[in-house]
Amino acid sequence: MSLPKLPRDKTSDYSHAMAQARRDTVTAATNAALTHTGQFSIDPALLPGNIEGFSGVVQVPMGFAGPILVDGEHAQGEFYVPMATTEGTLLASYSRGMRLTREAGGVRTTVIDDAMQRAPIFVFDDARRARDFGHWVSAHFADIKAAAEATTRSGQLRDIQQFAQGKLRWLRFNFTTGDAAGQNMVSKATHAACQWILAQQPPGLAHFSLAANFDTDKKHSTVNSLHTRGKRVVAEITLPAKLLQEVMHTSGEALFKQRQLSNMGAMMAGSVNNGAHFANGITAVFMACGQDVANVAESSAGFVHGELLANGDYYFSVTIPALIVASYGGGTGLPTQRECLEVMGCYGAGKVNKLAEIIAATVLCGELSLASAIVSDQWVSSHDALGRNRP
Amino acid sequence: MSLPKLPRDKTSDYSHAMAQARRDTVTAATNAALTHTGQFSIDPALLPGNIEGFSGVVQVPMGFAGPILVDGEHAQGEFYVPMATTEGTLLASYSRGMRLTREAGGVRTTVIDDAMQRAPIFVFDDARRARDFGHWVSAHFADIKAAAEATTRSGQLRDIQQFAQGKLRWLRFNFTTGDAAGQNMVSKATHAACQWILAQQPPGLAHFSLAANFDTDKKHSTVNSLHTRGKRVVAEITLPAKLLQEVMHTSGEALFKQRQLSNMGAMMAGSVNNGAHFANGITAVFMACGQDVANVAESSAGFVHGELLANGDYYFSVTIPALIVASYGGGTGLPTQRECLEVMGCYGAGKVNKLAEIIAATVLCGELSLASAIVSDQWVSSHDALGRNRP
Amino acid sequence: MSLPKLPRDKTSDYSHAMAQARRDTVTAATNAALTHTGQFSIDPALLPGNIEGFSGVVQVPMGFAGPILVDGEHAQGEFYVPMATTEGTLLASYSRGMRLTREAGGVRTTVIDDAMQRAPIFVFDDARRARDFGHWVSAHFADIKAAAEATTRSGQLRDIQQFAQGKLRWLRFNFTTGDAAGQNMVSKATHAACQWILAQQPPGLAHFSLAANFDTDKKHSTVNSLHTRGKRVVAEITLPAKLLQEVMHTSGEALFKQRQLSNMGAMMAGSVNNGAHFANGITAVFMACGQDVANVAESSAGFVHGELLANGDYYFSVTIPALIVASYGGGTGLPTQRECLEVMGCYGAGKVNKLAEIIAATVLCGELSLASAIVSDQWVSSHDALGRNRP
Amino acid sequence: MSLPKLPRDKTSDYSHAMAQARRDTVTAATNAALTHTGQFSIDPALLPGNIEGFSGVVQVPMGFAGPILVDGEHAQGEFYVPMATTEGTLLASYSRGMRLTREAGGVRTTVIDDAMQRAPIFVFDDARRARDFGHWVSAHFADIKAAAEATTRSGQLRDIQQFAQGKLRWLRFNFTTGDAAGQNMVSKATHAACQWILAQQPPGLAHFSLAANFDTDKKHSTVNSLHTRGKRVVAEITLPAKLLQEVMHTSGEALFKQRQLSNMGAMMAGSVNNGAHFANGITAVFMACGQDVANVAESSAGFVHGELLANGDYYFSVTIPALIVASYGGGTGLPTQRECLEVMGCYGAGKVNKLAEIIAATVLCGELSLASAIVSDQWVSSHDALGRNRP
Repeated sequence: MSLPKLPRDKTSDYSHAMAQARRDTVTAATNAALTHTGQFSIDPALLPGNIEGFSGVVQVPMGFAGPILVDGEHAQGEFYVPMATTEGTLLASYSRGMRLTREAGGVRTTVIDDAMQRAPIFVFDDARRARDFGHWVSAHFADIKAAAEATTRSGQLRDIQQFAQGKLRWLRFNFTTGDAAGQNMVSKATHAACQWILAQQPPGLAHFSLAANFDTDKKHSTVNSLHTRGKRVVAEITLPAKLLQEVMHTSGEALFKQRQLSNMGAMMAGSVNNGAHFANGITAVFMACGQDVANVAESSAGFVHGELLANGDYYFSVTIPALIVASYGGGTGLPTQRECLEVMGCYGAGKVNKLAEIIAATVLCGELSLASAIVSDQWVSSHDALGRNRP
Repeated sequence: MSLPKLPRDKTSDYSHAMAQARRDTVTAATNAALTHTGQFSIDPALLPGNIEGFSGVVQVPMGFAGPILVDGEHAQGEFYVPMATTEGTLLASYSRGMRLTREAGGVRTTVIDDAMQRAPIFVFDDARRARDFGHWVSAHFADIKAAAEATTRSGQLRDIQQFAQGKLRWLRFNFTTGDAAGQNMVSKATHAACQWILAQQPPGLAHFSLAANFDTDKKHSTVNSLHTRGKRVVAEITLPAKLLQEVMHTSGEALFKQRQLSNMGAMMAGSVNNGAHFANGITAVFMACGQDVANVAESSAGFVHGELLANGDYYFSVTIPALIVASYGGGTGLPTQRECLEVMGCYGAGKVNKLAEIIAATVLCGELSLASAIVSDQWVSSHDALGRNRP
Repeated sequence: MSLPKLPRDKTSDYSHAMAQARRDTVTAATNAALTHTGQFSIDPALLPGNIEGFSGVVQVPMGFAGPILVDGEHAQGEFYVPMATTEGTLLASYSRGMRLTREAGGVRTTVIDDAMQRAPIFVFDDARRARDFGHWVSAHFADIKAAAEATTRSGQLRDIQQFAQGKLRWLRFNFTTGDAAGQNMVSKATHAACQWILAQQPPGLAHFSLAANFDTDKKHSTVNSLHTRGKRVVAEITLPAKLLQEVMHTSGEALFKQRQLSNMGAMMAGSVNNGAHFANGITAVFMACGQDVANVAESSAGFVHGELLANGDYYFSVTIPALIVASYGGGTGLPTQRECLEVMGCYGAGKVNKLAEIIAATVLCGELSLASAIVSDQWVSSHDALGRNRP
Repeated sequence: MSLPKLPRDKTSDYSHAMAQARRDTVTAATNAALTHTGQFSIDPALLPGNIEGFSGVVQVPMGFAGPILVDGEHAQGEFYVPMATTEGTLLASYSRGMRLTREAGGVRTTVIDDAMQRAPIFVFDDARRARDFGHWVSAHFADIKAAAEATTRSGQLRDIQQFAQGKLRWLRFNFTTGDAAGQNMVSKATHAACQWILAQQPPGLAHFSLAANFDTDKKHSTVNSLHTRGKRVVAEITLPAKLLQEVMHTSGEALFKQRQLSNMGAMMAGSVNNGAHFANGITAVFMACGQDVANVAESSAGFVHGELLANGDYYFSVTIPALIVASYGGGTGLPTQRECLEVMGCYGAGKVNKLAEIIAATVLCGELSLASAIVSDQWVSSHDALGRNRP
């Protein structure tokens, strides 16, 4: 069956009528009704820059987990956390963890690093030329930084890491990007910096490409977990033994024992995360808050660390090494997404670290909730009760 | 600031009034308007099993990429591919790749493996007991299979892989799960199988846990890329040199050269994907089609392979080793999501492999489009033109 | 400077005179004396099959660590462990660990898996052909096994694992190889099996290669750590708190705390071993006992696991997933190497698992010794005292 | 059977008589003759600092590969390469590769980085304290460097990398170490630096350990491959098509095609080296030249890169990111080992980079030889002919 092309030549037409025309074309060709996708309150005129060929919306159910109590440097106090999901149990589970940590005095959060990258590759005639180029780059950092920053108001080139193999050399440009996630900002700035470098005619340069999988954008890599992509953010808490028993029906001993096994499992399986399910919480908040959800590929990696204290209390932390978030730009300004951000006071200028901290605290709560459920064997039964749509 | 609890004790109340009450509570406490999140056409009564504390919806913009031409075993012909996103350039880029592959005769797709897991851990007194238990499990596979399958109509226990360290032994139960993604199904079935095993009182068993990070659910692992989680699906095409020039303004030589560098970058960076951006396409289709979007953590891993033919044509394939998809259950039945699935004829019984094939073909188109843009240096400029909301 | 060719055309001449002629040529060309390399007691006539162009020997200092007390299935009782090394501290450190474990009742050892591989690749026209070939291989396992085993007396084809990407398919042939390490045996057997397969003309086969880095011979890989290469062997012990204090001046608490940090370090650094220095002990025994020392690349990977018991005792295990050892063939029959094997009763038929167990027990002792030294801060000072040749 | 202790209390007695006494004790207890291990020309009085409990030697057969033609910055001209091995085929294979590269004009070699590490861990009360400590370390680098370098004449602290998870912070001290491998030197220097740091009483410091698996000593890690341990050294060559045909009976096309498959195999298998068998050449030279052979664990990792040129010539490079070598200290001064180093002019001051270059060139030759053999299917048959002792 050959399908008609959609009215796409007029990508600049973001009207209700055009969206309807597209839906009509699809329905005519496929016999699939598009009733609900055509029901939305957002103004299509807002959408240039967010989507091409806009045709309607997907309505993703949303609820508020919490309140969560956060003791951060940017997030202070209680917050409702908007989560969009179709996975039963998720919201209840995160809320349970939030209750636990609230009663324990709140989650301490800290952004410990911040960098967004583009990593162009320079190929030389031989390894010596490549090595000498590396030295030249270090010596001309100020010039390169100037060329990069000329393209952006909020981006700043922090440093350039170098990675070398044979005659290949990747330069990993690390930028801070203000309140934006900044992938496009750093692409433009790195492009400009590379144009300046190329104009200097580095001796022996044979080939250049703005990207060759060292960034690594939209996919996990060890480099990103080691060296940060987006925010590197930590959430920590010490849970009193008594509270673990009352709220979670478990103990620090049991959680710590399970943690040992989970660490071994993650190490043997070659997992990029020794925790349980960072991705669930991150995805639900990302969808609710207009983040680029594809970055779950990177942001779902991470580390957890538990310590059993002498008195039976349990210290626990999560580290998200590549949390890519924005309080400005992208999907953050769309009506439902902006409302969700505003519930947390996280929309607009100066809010990105606050958002990062709340997400990290949320992830910690989800880890504690699922770990407790596994340990106390409620896990399968709670999914049975709440997740009845999920085979 | 202490926030009031939301009306949550009545999680079983999926009414408009309750959703409104929750929004009102949040607005009163935070001064954040919740106007648009309260605008939706879907019936809250559908939502038990998908979310607790339902309070409204997030409206995610959606368009149709394509049509894509697929030459699969389950998907045959042209399809519009619904993609929900807030990332400018994404839909245009995938559509460009679909045009290329359509003109080249379509994308060949094949589901080459299928397995969903739960991997319980058994800890013994020592390594000998653990090893002997391993032999016992192999010898009693039929009994274990029977115990597992008693809990499910559509799940079938295919095999059990064993992974061993010291006195620890993980059993990786591999199920086929019909049209469902099946994580909960396999949890229940594995739980039942383990109850049967425990009832046999394996000699020297010291500890048991239904999960200890070997699955690995909601996170990437090498084990999943090696041994499949969900569908292992391949999309392939051979692109005529002439077409690459006309449509993409590039050549097989240029794409192949870039591929060499990208392979090296991925290997050195420790990336879980040597391709460009699987996650973008997968996430957009997952959001549109009611898939569990958190599985992007696993499904975004993968492999690409390119070959430059003697005549300048370019063979290219993508392999997604852990594509977790469903045509039934979860969020697939929600109104907008179901409409999107129905556009592709992918809703309900017997459609899950068709969906997997269309997604793989879509991913391939996105890879070709982005790779061509990088090679021909259009990349930064196209983001400038289309992605103006994205700093 | 152009150097003369060495008398190499006569590689079949394994005489003292020829070795002397080679040394003379080298000395004449380089002015380097070769006095000591010319001093040896071994008979050159033994060396065909071990080296080409034999010119002399390297004298590696050797001592006996222990005795170690082993409670294995194959090794039972006390053993002196021959170790060849030039690294000060090493022998003293392993001996210290052996004293500790001897006083604790000995090291329990278990060989839990056994497999040597060759992994040929088959490339097809497309992924469907490759998948169908996979099914065909499973269905014809008996024929393939017969073809493989026709080439060897002691090798047995246990199973074939399949790994797939696009149209590429690796078959990982797993053999047991008796008392030999078996790399050449399995190469020959796999070669024969593949010739049989090729003779059946698998539909759509485009290319074949006997090896393409999936084995992975002479290098570490996750696949080998997951699925065993050579012997997978475990050594375990529970150390009384009192003994740890007396012998090692440390405690189970301190070792366990350090273990937590070392696990995290290994996970973050992407290390292939969460232990301390398996390679030291393995290399020293390999050199003494005529093993293929290059296999340290694979055999140095591994896992350790510690548990702190309620009474302060410390359970500890090491798992070597790819210990490649032989009690027959290779360098095991050379005079000094054979003497070393005979000290442990590990030369010849039926001894390979015994050797594997003793090595694993030795590795465990070295781990405990170094960990204790780090924890009690003796580490730098002991190297100062004993390792004075080592800057 | 309980074995007598060896005369070990007199570890300071490095005499022939004491070595004989130890051998006699072992023979009496085990009935194993120790005739050949007692035959050696080296003076036991040289051995303090290299081994404790010296009891004899292992005689490892040695030959000279080559000559190899090297075009390095430190190694210039032809060299015989001493290799100690018991693996048949190895020397012949490396020599074959050396013939090829000699006829092609020699191997270009470059040391592109140089660093030896110790990576202590600092644990704080929480992540904020850990982050603030990180800033403090950066601000006090000069003081830390002074404290470190006070302990060594030849070591210099180049920089300190920081790696963070939660409240844990590893400092990776990077030193240059002159002609020594330097592991002990950097341990002492880092220990001194840490003592200085601890004396400043960093706020919130809870725990310190000089090592916690981030170095990573005696085991491979991604960090070491990314960031160098020892020398990072490259060998490169462009091979004329004609020569490949004449000497290796293969072509650039065939080698390049095999390279594609080997890259994929390595990536999928999670191998730490996409080449063939670095470990063989490195181990053989390490054993001959008194290097710490256990470092094969680290030094066997690496990267290869091939390019097929338009005229059919084949560019090929190897990169060894963690080559740990010394021309001074350790086993380099022992008589046979020193003779081997002197054959290459690599003993003593100012020679370590020369040695690194020759090893890298050797590795490249071995890669080309084995790859050619695999491609032209000589591989199994050559092992049959030359490796007859190797089952």
